[in-house]
Amino acid sequence: MNDAIDFDRYDRIRPIRWTGDALELLDQRKLPFAVEYVRCEDSDAVAAAIHALTVRGAPAIGIAAAWGTVLAARSVEASDGAAALAQIEPAMQRLNAARPTAVNLAWALARMRRALASTGADWREVLSREAQAIADEDLAANRRMGALGAALIAPGSGVLTHCNTGSLATAGFGTALGVIRAGVAQGRIQQVFAGETRPWLQGARLTVWELEQDGIAPTLIADAAASHLMKSGKVGWVVVGADRICANGDTANKIGTYQLAIAARHHGVKFMVAAPSSTVDMVTASGDAIEIEERDPGELFAVGGQRTAAERIGAWNPVFDVTPHELIDAIVTERGVIERPDAAAMKAAFG
Amino acid sequence: MNDAIDFDRYDRIRPIRWTGDALELLDQRKLPFAVEYVRCEDSDAVAAAIHALTVRGAPAIGIAAAWGTVLAARSVEASDGAAALAQIEPAMQRLNAARPTAVNLAWALARMRRALASTGADWREVLSREAQAIADEDLAANRRMGALGAALIAPGSGVLTHCNTGSLATAGFGTALGVIRAGVAQGRIQQVFAGETRPWLQGARLTVWELEQDGIAPTLIADAAASHLMKSGKVGWVVVGADRICANGDTANKIGTYQLAIAARHHGVKFMVAAPSSTVDMVTASGDAIEIEERDPGELFAVGGQRTAAERIGAWNPVFDVTPHELIDAIVTERGVIERPDAAAMKAAFG
Repeated sequence: MNDAIDFDRYDRIRPIRWTGDALELLDQRKLPFAVEYVRCEDSDAVAAAIHALTVRGAPAIGIAAAWGTVLAARSVEASDGAAALAQIEPAMQRLNAARPTAVNLAWALARMRRALASTGADWREVLSREAQAIADEDLAANRRMGALGAALIAPGSGVLTHCNTGSLATAGFGTALGVIRAGVAQGRIQQVFAGETRPWLQGARLTVWELEQDGIAPTLIADAAASHLMKSGKVGWVVVGADRICANGDTANKIGTYQLAIAARHHGVKFMVAAPSSTVDMVTASGDAIEIEERDPGELFAVGGQRTAAERIGAWNPVFDVTPHELIDAIVTERGVIERPDAAAMKAAFG
Repeated sequence: MNDAIDFDRYDRIRPIRWTGDALELLDQRKLPFAVEYVRCEDSDAVAAAIHALTVRGAPAIGIAAAWGTVLAARSVEASDGAAALAQIEPAMQRLNAARPTAVNLAWALARMRRALASTGADWREVLSREAQAIADEDLAANRRMGALGAALIAPGSGVLTHCNTGSLATAGFGTALGVIRAGVAQGRIQQVFAGETRPWLQGARLTVWELEQDGIAPTLIADAAASHLMKSGKVGWVVVGADRICANGDTANKIGTYQLAIAARHHGVKFMVAAPSSTVDMVTASGDAIEIEERDPGELFAVGGQRTAAERIGAWNPVFDVTPHELIDAIVTERGVIERPDAAAMKAAFG
């Protein structure tokens, strides 16, 4: 085992590119069959891309919204940041409304507002620098989280992840997948299992593709096979990301995460949440207060345009769930590791 | 609530038709988009149909194999059953090898062998009568199970089921879906949730379609949404079928069943297994001894011919798992209800 991590070797994909006058988003609806970037030239195009899942992943949609704010400012004439903000605010509201569950979106927009508020004539440059800083800090945070999280994993372990929390979901490297990349780089992790993550198949379509690009060969499983896998003893940790971490450690993440946490506890498998501190929402006391996005039931009726269920049926399609803090062994952010998270531990770290 | 059950009203589909000289199997690979029967004129065609999942469901493949034996006998000339059996045995072996996990297949073939062994010149008629008896008794057992299982369910309940255990998986009415049909008919069950059951989508493609045909409107969910659903309090029982029930009550069933049992216990939701006594395997002491079928990993890479994952990836595709008896609240067969099953209770019922 080698604790040094070659970050670049295992991290080649970038889902968000800023060209100076437009935002290019890797179209995640078309992966892994086509690698195409969608060009957004105004903030409403960015909001639409966030809503349509062209770009997805809690950190990535925060970064996209920051650049969307820069695009919204292009047509604004103002002598200082406060005046500019008043004009940009409606576009920021539309960006904020594009997805409801991940807190990173609102966090990034709040940060852009704060940056603007105290600026003078240079407000436009400040805004661009802030967006770039959000992206750069996300990548740095992920690398730090990777090192911190991997250190918890015993050499020779297998790990299971869910959804996509990788380079594709962030500025790069990934949150939970960053931990896994770091663990593979250090020789700690021997085998990576990925749940396919119905209905949108982020695991099958994105995680598996992304890891393959970086020379890591994962094993795909049906979401429903996770407990059978845990029983086999091949998995030491479940490592997942987060869309919102509450003040008591309760964590909203992709639907199915809660089920994995229950199964992990049942089998004595450890459960880790890896997310940047921008995902922490100390205003929301517990998971009961989190709005859970429900998407079109039609997502359950078709795969890749191929109808898979009968016509005129009912369905329920919540796309997130809440894992209570009692089932989480460690929350890893770029600020450190919180073991057995609860309200007191969260307050000590983020209060 | 009305305890009388109108069995025919809620049970219109028959997956297996014997024409007198051929076996017609409703092609479950094509449902719900095409209702087509495949005609099998010899026993190897039946074995191939079982292997290919044209016909599936533990009781249904037992019935199909019984008729496959009748087809194998058509070309045999013999003066008594013992002589006929010697000639038919290779075809029966091929039928038995078509699927490994469900015990009903071996059970039906053993019953056909026993029926043959003591017959004389009338062996051909005895063989046909035995196959018809297996089918008729299965339907009667399912109706009995339906009444017994539904009686456990409090009026006003919601239930969650997995895979397809309905008319399509049996001679008719179904095992777990028979309990649900009976519960709906009696007004006990207010809402039926069905997991889509990756990778083969038996829930999305078959269960939902089948219940809709009978005027029952189910709600489809992603398999990974089950725990979030249980937490909402909308489900009082999980009701599933079985492919093999061991001497201690451990139960093999569709991959994902075990995960539902863990989640049910976590939430105080009750867990019921409904299966005919032909599914009980008192020779196998516990679930550890059950062979778990693993199918082509390619089933995880595509849906309905539509590729959904990148090329050249690894996958693990076990299609059954084992639910330990400790997580089962009731096993319902046509012989009665076993609450809190264990080796002693199973021996008392099936010893």
